[in-house]
Amino acid sequence: MALRLGQLGSGPWWRAVRGDYAQLRAPSPRSASACVCRLPGTAGTQPRRGLGHGSSAGGGSRLGTGLAAALAGMAGLAAAVLGHVQRAEMVPKSSGARSPSPGRLEEDGDELARRCSTFMSSPVTELRELGRRPDDMKTKMELMIMETQAQVCRALAQVDGVADFSVDRWERKEGGGITCVLQDGRVFEKAGVNISVVHGNLSEEAANQMRSRGKALKKKDGKLPFTAMGISSVIHPKNPYAPTMHFNYRYFEVEEADGKMHWWFGGGCDLTPTYLNREDAVHFHRTLKEACDQHGPDIYPKFKKWCDDYFFIAHRGERRGIGGIFFDDLDSPSKEEAFRFVKTCAEAVVPSYVPIVKKHCDDSYTPQDKLWQQLRRGRYVEFNLVYDRGTKFGLFTPGSRIESILMSLPLTARWEYMHSPPENSKEAEILEVLRHPKDWVH
Amino acid sequence: MALRLGQLGSGPWWRAVRGDYAQLRAPSPRSASACVCRLPGTAGTQPRRGLGHGSSAGGGSRLGTGLAAALAGMAGLAAAVLGHVQRAEMVPKSSGARSPSPGRLEEDGDELARRCSTFMSSPVTELRELGRRPDDMKTKMELMIMETQAQVCRALAQVDGVADFSVDRWERKEGGGITCVLQDGRVFEKAGVNISVVHGNLSEEAANQMRSRGKALKKKDGKLPFTAMGISSVIHPKNPYAPTMHFNYRYFEVEEADGKMHWWFGGGCDLTPTYLNREDAVHFHRTLKEACDQHGPDIYPKFKKWCDDYFFIAHRGERRGIGGIFFDDLDSPSKEEAFRFVKTCAEAVVPSYVPIVKKHCDDSYTPQDKLWQQLRRGRYVEFNLVYDRGTKFGLFTPGSRIESILMSLPLTARWEYMHSPPENSKEAEILEVLRHPKDWVH
Repeated sequence: MALRLGQLGSGPWWRAVRGDYAQLRAPSPRSASACVCRLPGTAGTQPRRGLGHGSSAGGGSRLGTGLAAALAGMAGLAAAVLGHVQRAEMVPKSSGARSPSPGRLEEDGDELARRCSTFMSSPVTELRELGRRPDDMKTKMELMIMETQAQVCRALAQVDGVADFSVDRWERKEGGGITCVLQDGRVFEKAGVNISVVHGNLSEEAANQMRSRGKALKKKDGKLPFTAMGISSVIHPKNPYAPTMHFNYRYFEVEEADGKMHWWFGGGCDLTPTYLNREDAVHFHRTLKEACDQHGPDIYPKFKKWCDDYFFIAHRGERRGIGGIFFDDLDSPSKEEAFRFVKTCAEAVVPSYVPIVKKHCDDSYTPQDKLWQQLRRGRYVEFNLVYDRGTKFGLFTPGSRIESILMSLPLTARWEYMHSPPENSKEAEILEVLRHPKDWVH
Repeated sequence: MALRLGQLGSGPWWRAVRGDYAQLRAPSPRSASACVCRLPGTAGTQPRRGLGHGSSAGGGSRLGTGLAAALAGMAGLAAAVLGHVQRAEMVPKSSGARSPSPGRLEEDGDELARRCSTFMSSPVTELRELGRRPDDMKTKMELMIMETQAQVCRALAQVDGVADFSVDRWERKEGGGITCVLQDGRVFEKAGVNISVVHGNLSEEAANQMRSRGKALKKKDGKLPFTAMGISSVIHPKNPYAPTMHFNYRYFEVEEADGKMHWWFGGGCDLTPTYLNREDAVHFHRTLKEACDQHGPDIYPKFKKWCDDYFFIAHRGERRGIGGIFFDDLDSPSKEEAFRFVKTCAEAVVPSYVPIVKKHCDDSYTPQDKLWQQLRRGRYVEFNLVYDRGTKFGLFTPGSRIESILMSLPLTARWEYMHSPPENSKEAEILEVLRHPKDWVH
């Protein structure tokens, strides 16, 4: 059973939660502010640096080795630590109904519930828990990705005008996720926006990947506790002149045996057009650049290049699309500043992409245009199944939620033997850009 | 430029070759029979054993580790050792025109040319070279796979009735291949039959894979010379009631520093129906079983299970299809007997499959049937891009001929989020068999 977007704002879940929240009483002697996250290196304790100047953040290596890179698709991450799969009920668990709290917390809880009422579903973490640790980065990030999911879904549903997002909320004891999919709409062939919030112990394989990155993590009783959360989305419109867009923002915490916490952010946003439209390319990149520039002048060029390098279909010698930004291992200059940067990027998703879809969703096109789109869809499938580390990580993890991982695949795709567009055609034009990435904003 | 099947039998290449061959003169003092392959363990020097009883042939491990398994798709192999890619000319090189030979060899050459005249193209190896070493397994195998390619292409083109196979012949100094593809015909959506014959030095990565298999190969000046050849084919019909079929037969030689030769065969043939037809499944498996039974009673059960284990889409918990046979590392009881077995298998391809396609190619079907076929095509893509070792080996090898490797992908495929067929439907019926393989012949 899936909740339709039309139900949001009047649906049962958040009204019930707000009601529950108003009756909250302090569940334990620990106050909300006392329950902060055990993380080192917050703002003020580290020298102020521009974003992307940290040692690991500044990687720029083509595939960004390591677990964080392996988790480029958060769907895969969620899959990695969760057990058996079931389609979740839309009505959440009690969300703290049996744990009332008084005074200030009551107001905060009411405010939190009001904020959450705009989401596609209740957050993965119980509201009571979120209310208890408002300043913890895990809380901030989860609320931010929930907000982004709702913003993006709402904007896309508005553009589509006909189809709504289905909302699948899935839960395990190790966490859960919310997968929103709009399929076969008026404008969109397939649009997926996936949230996951998971915690557990890193597998040996995952821990080894991190060690190879240079972080020799010390296990506690053979375990490496971690928390990970993120939003991952792929939007495939029907019209060949409306490009595909992907974005993903994620946050990771790992605790070593001595209690030392490691944390980092990763993410990116990239565009995959069937045909090149220079105006669109400039708009997309400029919007991302403006977001990056708010946090430092060197960020956009660096993360733009990283994106071109990461989304590379090596066996074709082509990029998947015309790029955007991509970054991983972002652990500087401070957790707060890194989060602000990621938040700015997430807020740029709708303005960078939605105007382009709106502009082209009713463009006229020929069967030939559609065929070329389908061939490009095939390349998209090749990248995602052969190279994308998040997808592969998820696929090879037993018990993964495959439907959330492979939500990124297009509804339809095509492979023709020896297809080669004529010289000077518009198909050849985009191929040229995919083979030789351009600078769109200078 | 591609040769059409309609040209075969009157095409320029084989007539020219026969003409050349009639003028052959002995090119060197070495006679044809003196130029045998430097291989150990021929029949008579080893104890006679049934096929599949050798230590490595008897593996049965799920993914058959090692290079041989990595080369499950010969297209990938060909790609692995070849440099830059170009579409080959259809008219071959002189094929020995400047090296005449007298007497007996002339008759043999004429016979060889006559035999080759039925092929889709001239063999990869020059006829002169093949004529010089008629008893070498490399010659026997190359001629056998060329013959199989022609048989299969001819039978399929006859069933299609409208479309012909294009023939791409590609050459490098390290070898070459012949890729035959029929695309968007009356009966077939995409049918590819690919030959490759390559030689060179094993890469470090490939050699390491072999060592992990237990064969610690000693290099000569850091090199491991090898020869590999094979035929690989995937046939996707249009009608959802006509199943997809794949087969692949291959032969490998590696020479160690001390001159010791290792050789083995691998291959298999499997069926991927959109809907289950028990009669077809029994026919297909029974035909393969009869082929296997000619060489030993234990072969079919063993290689049938190996097939079910290999073509497993782990993240879906499903086999790709209803199986068939699969084997690798076949190096017993003797080279000659192993070859005879592989030849019998190759000869079984047409009788195992073509009657099924003929029977169903004009079946009526609904849009719903076509949709389910497209979803199954998506699973086929998932297996080939995520798991198939031959495909992956090829994709990750620089300079590979990607079009030959990815010839196996269907023309079109589809992915729907959370698609699940109703209970007791015919879609659920095939899923049940893909999840729990059946014994079709007992």
